[in-house]
Amino acid sequence: MAAESQKRPISNIAFIIAMQSEALPVVNRFQLTEDPESVFPQGVPWVRYRGKYKDLNINLIWPGKDPALGVDSVGTISSSLVTYATIQALQPDLIINAGTSGGFKAKGASIGDVFIVSDCAFHDRRIPIPVFDLFGVGLRKAFETPNLVKELDLKVAKLSTGDSLDMTQQDETSIIANDATVKDMEGAAVAYVADLLKVPAIFIKAVTDIVDGDKPTAEEFLQNLASVTAALDEAVEKVINFINGKCLSEL
Amino acid sequence: MAAESQKRPISNIAFIIAMQSEALPVVNRFQLTEDPESVFPQGVPWVRYRGKYKDLNINLIWPGKDPALGVDSVGTISSSLVTYATIQALQPDLIINAGTSGGFKAKGASIGDVFIVSDCAFHDRRIPIPVFDLFGVGLRKAFETPNLVKELDLKVAKLSTGDSLDMTQQDETSIIANDATVKDMEGAAVAYVADLLKVPAIFIKAVTDIVDGDKPTAEEFLQNLASVTAALDEAVEKVINFINGKCLSEL
Repeated sequence: MAAESQKRPISNIAFIIAMQSEALPVVNRFQLTEDPESVFPQGVPWVRYRGKYKDLNINLIWPGKDPALGVDSVGTISSSLVTYATIQALQPDLIINAGTSGGFKAKGASIGDVFIVSDCAFHDRRIPIPVFDLFGVGLRKAFETPNLVKELDLKVAKLSTGDSLDMTQQDETSIIANDATVKDMEGAAVAYVADLLKVPAIFIKAVTDIVDGDKPTAEEFLQNLASVTAALDEAVEKVINFINGKCLSEL
Repeated sequence: MAAESQKRPISNIAFIIAMQSEALPVVNRFQLTEDPESVFPQGVPWVRYRGKYKDLNINLIWPGKDPALGVDSVGTISSSLVTYATIQALQPDLIINAGTSGGFKAKGASIGDVFIVSDCAFHDRRIPIPVFDLFGVGLRKAFETPNLVKELDLKVAKLSTGDSLDMTQQDETSIIANDATVKDMEGAAVAYVADLLKVPAIFIKAVTDIVDGDKPTAEEFLQNLASVTAALDEAVEKVINFINGKCLSEL
């Protein structure tokens, strides 16, 4: 981003939130309303909510329900597309990708933990040709927010992203190589697009299921989704209150 | 697409081609030239080549080299982004995703074979929750071209897409479930975006390596890349000559 943008207060924030059940508590918390006229092209299911909160223009983009199947458009393709289209349409000062994630108890994660992400990478893009292998992993640093982390006493973790809810042995090997504490289906894709277009991005991930635990991921995920999105929403409010009135360089 | 667009001759074609080595033979064949002023935003490495061939305006979009790593921006995220941005900027009548692929000898594929794709699906998006599982697989029909297939005597096959060059056991299970003869890293992502925005898309895939054979994929892929892109380029020329002067409904 341009240096000058770091020196004026942040005014325009875009949340990218993949699931409706993750998005709606945030929509309600900040009393956002759905845009009557979409800024996105005809045909796409992407939904923009917007509102003013303190000194901030808050946008929340949810990729919406798949037009044919009616389920949330989760995963890296939808989240990269909405990140791209959001940056083009709204030119946010800061992107916040918030959502639920799997956590690894071996790395200290528990159900309901909320993490700020330091690094994103992919664990399901194996291209065993030199340099292409690094492209596949796609390691990127999140925008650094040392003051936010310290002030709100947030846990910091590395995130690994893939398009499956489950985890194969090969995924696990890559996740360990990525040194990840949390695993999601969008983060590294949002980071990729934000990096291309030079918009700072931060990532807030709440743990719904323990990947290296005894319970099946899908079951545990669905069981904890409601309670953990409440914890996520609380953390998001604290982060927004901290951001309000500050420049990027003060985060 | 609108019904009337099927009844006038196709005029505006957009190729989406992931690798430079796949794109350049097509660029040279149709004497396309690189756009001096990008239609895409600052920061993205995407390259548009364009030219007139017979009655057709031909665009070829290559996602370009990764700005940090210098390798082709392969895979589903880049290809979905360029498909989206290309449709927004150029409103093509038809998208043609052409490229190399792995082939399964058990399904009749040999090195150098060129296939027209009937169906695309993903093999690395496992979401074991009802309906989300179908979203993950993302099965889509390519635009049907029965006359083109018959006239040019082309082989037809199903395509399975994933972000890895290799294949795990879980990938293989999904590829078999997808009944795929060819495996690539972009097709189903291009199909997803084209379907969202209601632009017809066809897929031409040439086999560089036999996935269920003895040789390591990466080695075989690199060995055959040059010769197979020549075969791909020849097939592309035949397809373009067939398309010239026809409406979508005549393909």
